[in-house]
Amino acid sequence: MTLGITSFHAPKRTLMGPGPSDVSDRVLKAMARPTLGHLDPLFVGMMDEIKQLLQYAFQTQNELTFAVSAPGSAGMECCFVNLVEPGDVIIVCQNGVFGGRMRENVERCGGTAVMVQDDWGCAVDPSKLEHALNAHPEAVLVAFVHAETSTGVQSDAKTLVSLAHAHDCLTIVDTVTSLVGTPLYVDDWGIDAIYSGSQKCLSAPPGLSPVSFNQRAADKIRNRKTKIQSWFLDLNLVMGYWAGDGKRAYHHTAPVNSLYGLHESLVMVQEEGLEAAWTRHRDNHLALQKGLENMGIHFVVDQQYRLPQLNAVAIPNGVDDAAVRHRLLVDFNLEIGSGLGALAGKVWRIGLMGHASHPRNVDYCLDALKAVL
Amino acid sequence: MTLGITSFHAPKRTLMGPGPSDVSDRVLKAMARPTLGHLDPLFVGMMDEIKQLLQYAFQTQNELTFAVSAPGSAGMECCFVNLVEPGDVIIVCQNGVFGGRMRENVERCGGTAVMVQDDWGCAVDPSKLEHALNAHPEAVLVAFVHAETSTGVQSDAKTLVSLAHAHDCLTIVDTVTSLVGTPLYVDDWGIDAIYSGSQKCLSAPPGLSPVSFNQRAADKIRNRKTKIQSWFLDLNLVMGYWAGDGKRAYHHTAPVNSLYGLHESLVMVQEEGLEAAWTRHRDNHLALQKGLENMGIHFVVDQQYRLPQLNAVAIPNGVDDAAVRHRLLVDFNLEIGSGLGALAGKVWRIGLMGHASHPRNVDYCLDALKAVL
Repeated sequence: MTLGITSFHAPKRTLMGPGPSDVSDRVLKAMARPTLGHLDPLFVGMMDEIKQLLQYAFQTQNELTFAVSAPGSAGMECCFVNLVEPGDVIIVCQNGVFGGRMRENVERCGGTAVMVQDDWGCAVDPSKLEHALNAHPEAVLVAFVHAETSTGVQSDAKTLVSLAHAHDCLTIVDTVTSLVGTPLYVDDWGIDAIYSGSQKCLSAPPGLSPVSFNQRAADKIRNRKTKIQSWFLDLNLVMGYWAGDGKRAYHHTAPVNSLYGLHESLVMVQEEGLEAAWTRHRDNHLALQKGLENMGIHFVVDQQYRLPQLNAVAIPNGVDDAAVRHRLLVDFNLEIGSGLGALAGKVWRIGLMGHASHPRNVDYCLDALKAVL
Repeated sequence: MTLGITSFHAPKRTLMGPGPSDVSDRVLKAMARPTLGHLDPLFVGMMDEIKQLLQYAFQTQNELTFAVSAPGSAGMECCFVNLVEPGDVIIVCQNGVFGGRMRENVERCGGTAVMVQDDWGCAVDPSKLEHALNAHPEAVLVAFVHAETSTGVQSDAKTLVSLAHAHDCLTIVDTVTSLVGTPLYVDDWGIDAIYSGSQKCLSAPPGLSPVSFNQRAADKIRNRKTKIQSWFLDLNLVMGYWAGDGKRAYHHTAPVNSLYGLHESLVMVQEEGLEAAWTRHRDNHLALQKGLENMGIHFVVDQQYRLPQLNAVAIPNGVDDAAVRHRLLVDFNLEIGSGLGALAGKVWRIGLMGHASHPRNVDYCLDALKAVL
């Protein structure tokens, strides 16, 4: 038996796509620390710290704050399978790819999704949500995406949550791309259930999904009439392991080394401070924006809704999308993102996320684009 | 804001519990290589290699062979949500904790589980399965655990699969602990769907679940009458990303660095050769067994059913279970496993898995136990 496959040595790229973002050497080194048992007291202590650090990043006091042992898509599913019961009517605001995935989740949980549609590249329109809430008094939950990774658009989460609450609906908010990159206040805004990803503005390797649930969401889960359809994501079981009361019940084997990486990235967020991180993301975005506009490259999102960490720009006329991205990758070790769904072939998505949000990267990307175009 | 949390530095333990097992420096170093984009051609090429290496480890030609982006529990759920439809009758053989978890999965998929029970510490009795198959001609699937991690018992997978097939049932087989530690021939035995874990005899960090499905299983999935309840684990979608046809459709963001680790561990399996790995696991088991028996410590599993990679032994009379494990951990940096479920407080589970299956560890564990007892 000789497949003849040898060790894989990844080159060092500059990752300026929609995620994963560049991971710092500190975080990479943390990933390589010796594996501990998932019930080892030292490891369990580190999990407690991750919880505290995530509470800070989310700006919440929620007890039910932890990292799902799987990517953001599973974090999304964790929110839906726990909070949606068969027959529930859920209002889903869609303005890109990920609202569509929310609808899939609702329907696979046996719920009915009432869709509130906005154009791709636009923010969720609060007046459309209000209309839907008035038209569907039977709705029990509103779900929307704070920062649409497919379009680079930010919606007004605070207003949307407050509308939902005025109609006695719980909320599920996707912050995969917003967490740490742009202001987010879970408790202040009253978000009931939230999920994010490790590989965007946290700049940890992909594969973990930070989540948080407030008391109202936890009560809804505890008082379900039906069993949660996923064993792996059943919060009643998972919390026996993550709960901070000193007794850890085995549920599944935690991804130990990935959690080392997440811990280190969260320590770095704490060191910088959230507000400073938000400012850094905004400043680098403004510098990139200026440089791109000087080159005649235009943003597809209205200024007020632009995500500083994910810049969606129109591919200039006559330019070969794939060829340019290929040259950036091969000649410059630089990854930028293609369009997704309805925007495929029309836009590039240039990320300035987490560790990758740095003036050096702004300049590098602008220079590379100038050379290639 | 000062939580005052600093970087986490894990000590180097010797992991001889039920998993995670010791991870080699080669694999740890691989985890720390620069993160690539999940659609980067170099990364995608590495995924193709993982597929080939997993086909070798599973001894299969199955096209549908890949690693679920989450721990073994999610690999289990991946098999059940794809293969079980509401109303299906599934025969589940239980002889430990994980058969019970299979039942949970069946029921959460809307199926009915017919349980075939054997005592914890015993193998699955083929005659009981045959009896159940005769009594339930409506059954469509048989699920069982090849290597019960909770008890250290190996069952005769080849015979059980052949009985299931004689009654026109598909099979789901849990090989979380057996893969690479003990002979396993997916194609030769005709296993239809199989899942494993990265953190046992592969000695990669926890968080990934290798799976494989044969054509018969794939056909069943394609011809389902109902939608798969999990979006994250829907094989019809996941395969758009893992399929080796050169076009990768974005499904979720793969856990890039964890896959580096899995790749490296599989390269090491290929270098050693599967048969050599099985022999090594058996030899070290026999050495540990001899040493433990010399100390008057007895195995709880009949010799013919013992798993070489997971040794379940009775805690000697009068010995304080937790105190001994605590001293081993604190004084010797040595982790052994406690009992689980019905065996909690009654047994220790001493792992000799993957990289940890080494004569040095056999001696170290015996010496440490002698010192502490």
